[in-house]
Amino acid sequence: MIDLRSDTVTKPTPEMRQAAFEAVVGDDVYNEDPTILKLEALAAEIVGKEKAMFVPSGTQGNQIAVLTHCVSGQEVILEADSHIYFYEGATISAFAGVQPRTIKGKDGVMDPEEVKLAIREDDIHQPETGLICLENTHNRAGGAIVPLENMRDIYSISKEAHIPVHLDGARLFNASVATGISIKEYAAYTDTVQFCLSKGLGAPVGSIIAGDEAFIVKARKWRKRLGGGLRQAGMIAAPGIVALNKMVDRLTEDHEKARLLAQGLIEIGFSVENNVDTNIVLVNTQSRGYTAKQFVEKLKESGILSSAFGPDTVRFTTHYDVSEEDIQNSIDLIKKLV
Amino acid sequence: MIDLRSDTVTKPTPEMRQAAFEAVVGDDVYNEDPTILKLEALAAEIVGKEKAMFVPSGTQGNQIAVLTHCVSGQEVILEADSHIYFYEGATISAFAGVQPRTIKGKDGVMDPEEVKLAIREDDIHQPETGLICLENTHNRAGGAIVPLENMRDIYSISKEAHIPVHLDGARLFNASVATGISIKEYAAYTDTVQFCLSKGLGAPVGSIIAGDEAFIVKARKWRKRLGGGLRQAGMIAAPGIVALNKMVDRLTEDHEKARLLAQGLIEIGFSVENNVDTNIVLVNTQSRGYTAKQFVEKLKESGILSSAFGPDTVRFTTHYDVSEEDIQNSIDLIKKLV
Amino acid sequence: MIDLRSDTVTKPTPEMRQAAFEAVVGDDVYNEDPTILKLEALAAEIVGKEKAMFVPSGTQGNQIAVLTHCVSGQEVILEADSHIYFYEGATISAFAGVQPRTIKGKDGVMDPEEVKLAIREDDIHQPETGLICLENTHNRAGGAIVPLENMRDIYSISKEAHIPVHLDGARLFNASVATGISIKEYAAYTDTVQFCLSKGLGAPVGSIIAGDEAFIVKARKWRKRLGGGLRQAGMIAAPGIVALNKMVDRLTEDHEKARLLAQGLIEIGFSVENNVDTNIVLVNTQSRGYTAKQFVEKLKESGILSSAFGPDTVRFTTHYDVSEEDIQNSIDLIKKLV
Amino acid sequence: MIDLRSDTVTKPTPEMRQAAFEAVVGDDVYNEDPTILKLEALAAEIVGKEKAMFVPSGTQGNQIAVLTHCVSGQEVILEADSHIYFYEGATISAFAGVQPRTIKGKDGVMDPEEVKLAIREDDIHQPETGLICLENTHNRAGGAIVPLENMRDIYSISKEAHIPVHLDGARLFNASVATGISIKEYAAYTDTVQFCLSKGLGAPVGSIIAGDEAFIVKARKWRKRLGGGLRQAGMIAAPGIVALNKMVDRLTEDHEKARLLAQGLIEIGFSVENNVDTNIVLVNTQSRGYTAKQFVEKLKESGILSSAFGPDTVRFTTHYDVSEEDIQNSIDLIKKLV
Repeated sequence: MIDLRSDTVTKPTPEMRQAAFEAVVGDDVYNEDPTILKLEALAAEIVGKEKAMFVPSGTQGNQIAVLTHCVSGQEVILEADSHIYFYEGATISAFAGVQPRTIKGKDGVMDPEEVKLAIREDDIHQPETGLICLENTHNRAGGAIVPLENMRDIYSISKEAHIPVHLDGARLFNASVATGISIKEYAAYTDTVQFCLSKGLGAPVGSIIAGDEAFIVKARKWRKRLGGGLRQAGMIAAPGIVALNKMVDRLTEDHEKARLLAQGLIEIGFSVENNVDTNIVLVNTQSRGYTAKQFVEKLKESGILSSAFGPDTVRFTTHYDVSEEDIQNSIDLIKKLV
Repeated sequence: MIDLRSDTVTKPTPEMRQAAFEAVVGDDVYNEDPTILKLEALAAEIVGKEKAMFVPSGTQGNQIAVLTHCVSGQEVILEADSHIYFYEGATISAFAGVQPRTIKGKDGVMDPEEVKLAIREDDIHQPETGLICLENTHNRAGGAIVPLENMRDIYSISKEAHIPVHLDGARLFNASVATGISIKEYAAYTDTVQFCLSKGLGAPVGSIIAGDEAFIVKARKWRKRLGGGLRQAGMIAAPGIVALNKMVDRLTEDHEKARLLAQGLIEIGFSVENNVDTNIVLVNTQSRGYTAKQFVEKLKESGILSSAFGPDTVRFTTHYDVSEEDIQNSIDLIKKLV
Repeated sequence: MIDLRSDTVTKPTPEMRQAAFEAVVGDDVYNEDPTILKLEALAAEIVGKEKAMFVPSGTQGNQIAVLTHCVSGQEVILEADSHIYFYEGATISAFAGVQPRTIKGKDGVMDPEEVKLAIREDDIHQPETGLICLENTHNRAGGAIVPLENMRDIYSISKEAHIPVHLDGARLFNASVATGISIKEYAAYTDTVQFCLSKGLGAPVGSIIAGDEAFIVKARKWRKRLGGGLRQAGMIAAPGIVALNKMVDRLTEDHEKARLLAQGLIEIGFSVENNVDTNIVLVNTQSRGYTAKQFVEKLKESGILSSAFGPDTVRFTTHYDVSEEDIQNSIDLIKKLV
Repeated sequence: MIDLRSDTVTKPTPEMRQAAFEAVVGDDVYNEDPTILKLEALAAEIVGKEKAMFVPSGTQGNQIAVLTHCVSGQEVILEADSHIYFYEGATISAFAGVQPRTIKGKDGVMDPEEVKLAIREDDIHQPETGLICLENTHNRAGGAIVPLENMRDIYSISKEAHIPVHLDGARLFNASVATGISIKEYAAYTDTVQFCLSKGLGAPVGSIIAGDEAFIVKARKWRKRLGGGLRQAGMIAAPGIVALNKMVDRLTEDHEKARLLAQGLIEIGFSVENNVDTNIVLVNTQSRGYTAKQFVEKLKESGILSSAFGPDTVRFTTHYDVSEEDIQNSIDLIKKLV
């Protein structure tokens, strides 16, 4: 099987396993796990924030950001197809008690003017705007890169309105590698950032949430409430350190594989819906007479795993565990199939 | 002052005051207020539902509907400019823990196909869709009437998906009077309905929420939690009975006054943004070089009260306490002003 | 029927009805109802706080206090039989997301030392203490009066710990009339107070929540979220003004009637569980071989309404609408019955 | 340093590290991690439930139980010193919107009669009882074992009232090893059980929540919302399998070490507050003129780590990483100290 469903399926490298095996550990609820502390220091430095905290998943990192920045009854501005809104089980409403205010973006990019207009007035009928969330790269927009200028413009609006900005940077390293803009530069236009050690970076488990010290102090308690206070977590932090040190530059290969795949699919006659900025290809199945679900099923029979992403949209994601040859084989198999 | 801010400013009629004075009352938390029981029976009959319950406000009626139909972590489909989403302080998220899924309508009317697509799949990442909310007439769309066919189509989709439909009918009587379609006919395409006794019907306080018996049993406890369990509430139910018996047909006059006002404003050179289906006129102030706030201020100086409804939109609402003469005077005053 | 279930069953006096009939009203969501403003000013003065706000019920007043003082994830210290904990449908957890920390009191009075010990430490596993709630008189302790010194001691502890104190004073006027201590003196040992205009004071609907200005500004929005933002609410505020001006001193009669009833029941051979400080009598039914529910049923057959208050406890409450003669008749009827 | 703060400080054994190193992994959000599946099957069998699910922490397991069993506005009966109530940051109120109803137990054991009385009646003022939680062994009662008969009695009451029972069995294996009663026998008197792989069993991270299939299906989504949906989690499941297969029987040694410590401390003149049923010793410091915090500080200077557990109570916990010799040394050091 060639697994193109998601970059979350990547398996830990031998070096990561070795790091886990050797990890010096302690009880992280007491802040005593040396490997966690090392990972958090490294992550804080990369992202250019005072403090970073390890969390078991990107979803938990995002939820902690909302819980820490907001209080119940507020509103959060975010893109209408963002992960936090679309794929996190309505948790910002269920746990933080906040209402999403969605803005339909273009390729995942919100118009700063619309963000500005969406900020609520002081009015007895209206919630207060408590947070603005960005996502870079943007998953449902096909791994689209949100331009630094856009982030800067929105950040500037947010600062005028005294509203914090959180970045869901689950795949921020993909943006960084593709554009040459450092993580720190992106993070400069945010108050808090979450990024994943799994996905393209290949660690088995875990994400980072970073911000200033006061934020992280409060965030630590929300992590405990969410059940993310772990004990000898160094065993999963150790592979995360390997991920940050060794797996970043190679993301460029994933992007090349994605472009190769997109090109192959276009040549067969498919239309590709996204710009293929990074490691995701969104293919429209309508022209070939399939629904997304039917096509995913067909592909599976041919040995290719993919994800239905909309009624007529199938997502392919490239990653460490698929080679260029796998991509070439995939194209050949799809050619045969249609 | 000619007060065109809202139909909520209407004062109780002498007959309503007399009814309050004479009301036979009891303790409604024990279900023993005869006047409340009478109002609830009358309301249930008008709306064609098994049971109706008095609530102190339309917001409370809507929130009870969401709390009773849904559980935390679900999603509610509603129009992007609906009152429940826009003007109720993010309460569906704060109290019910549900996430709004907004659909941008045309004149307050959601495309049934979009509603269908917005219903969530069974997926570990996604919330379940727990409720669809409609609003008729639609306040922010300028008192626009949602066609019965649209309601029927959405209701039919909802039943296939086993999802309840709630109607925010704060101004449903305006729609009914304007179209000749009975309240009962509208309500037939809903599971629960809220309508207001204040606003156009002129009662000082109160709304009705109606549905089947099982719904109302659960709803009664949520009303208690929201602090809407009142004691000798018959004193405010009595004017509500007068409102339902005497104040419905006259809504047609409010609609005529709104059309008169719209026409006058157009003649002066304003552009009117809405169709003026009922008692609301939305005027665009941009062409005259005002922001909405500036124009509201100017009008106030001339003795006319109105509401800023957007950056360049001012809302005028006609009601029982403004006469045709007041409208004519308003037009004259505005003519002078510009 | 002699209705001794609760003082909530009192009917509005003719003077209250007249006041409602004549009330000058406006739209209170816009803060424009003159009668509401008059009631709020009067209430603020009586209670000695900067601002007061009308709410439709005592439950809503208490919930607003918790929502305004606290944020989700905090803990509220209160007596184990307090109304907020026992009779408000778990709403402080459902809406405010706070956890009650209960202290078992003696006659409704919490030991200040226990309150002090219950305040949480700064610890990653523990919630922060966000509020201390008192109740005076204490309903489930049989209308027991909480001594001023106890309130002072707890208030002093709270101030050291920077934790606000809210008083559920639904029946605070009963305490005040019985002890001669003014409402203002009691309120001095609280940050916010709620008291009811219905119950002993006989108004048909409504309560007051009072505190400093910043509190009331925030509270106003929570009231709107709870659906307590009313329109021409002056019609129910007017009877409330009568209640505050005319119905306070007469509470002493209710207390006498309660003592009369208690004495009568003791003479028949019942044991009375509470001290009968004010207008409530708690009778133990075990010695007479009844469960509370059975005894309530028996009494009903004899023409007396009462409340089951525990497995073997029946509550009788005296109020404006039962006369001394009614009480004497009740004793006679019960004598016959047993 | 001899670390007696908690059994959570145990470090993974070499065999656990080897298991992590070799673990066959997949993406557990897709239910494809073979090692997770193996651990879950093993855990389900041990506990005698249809299904088990891996969670990153005991707190998350408990919170998932409450979120899955209850809806907002309900009440949960639990012991006044239980972990869920005392040490989980008010999360059952913050996230699940439920109110704890606490019962003060004796040695962590609730009187079944009190549990029965605490179940709420059908009443408009009262929440519904949605869940009963037990804790065995009981942490704050000093690792006290809750007798099987007590669990059976409470379970029987719960079944009559159609209320589910959840067991916080973070240290259930300690109870089982000490009494010879199997995990399955204990779990028979519960609907759902949580137990920890860390703590006495020594795994670095993780707990199990088990119940019937319908429960686990719903629970899986709540785990995702809490951010507990992990990817190649097999790397932390593998040590968990070792923990279940190799580390259970040795718990008896921890219990012996605790008894040894208790005896030593008594001989020195301390009073021990608990029965030392398992691996926890609670020492009262008052008789020696220390507060708990002072004594913890003194002990630290002598090379012993312990936990302040109350104003005058210090907790010592024995575990895999302290030897009998360490205990002997601790006693000697404390003897010198006092």
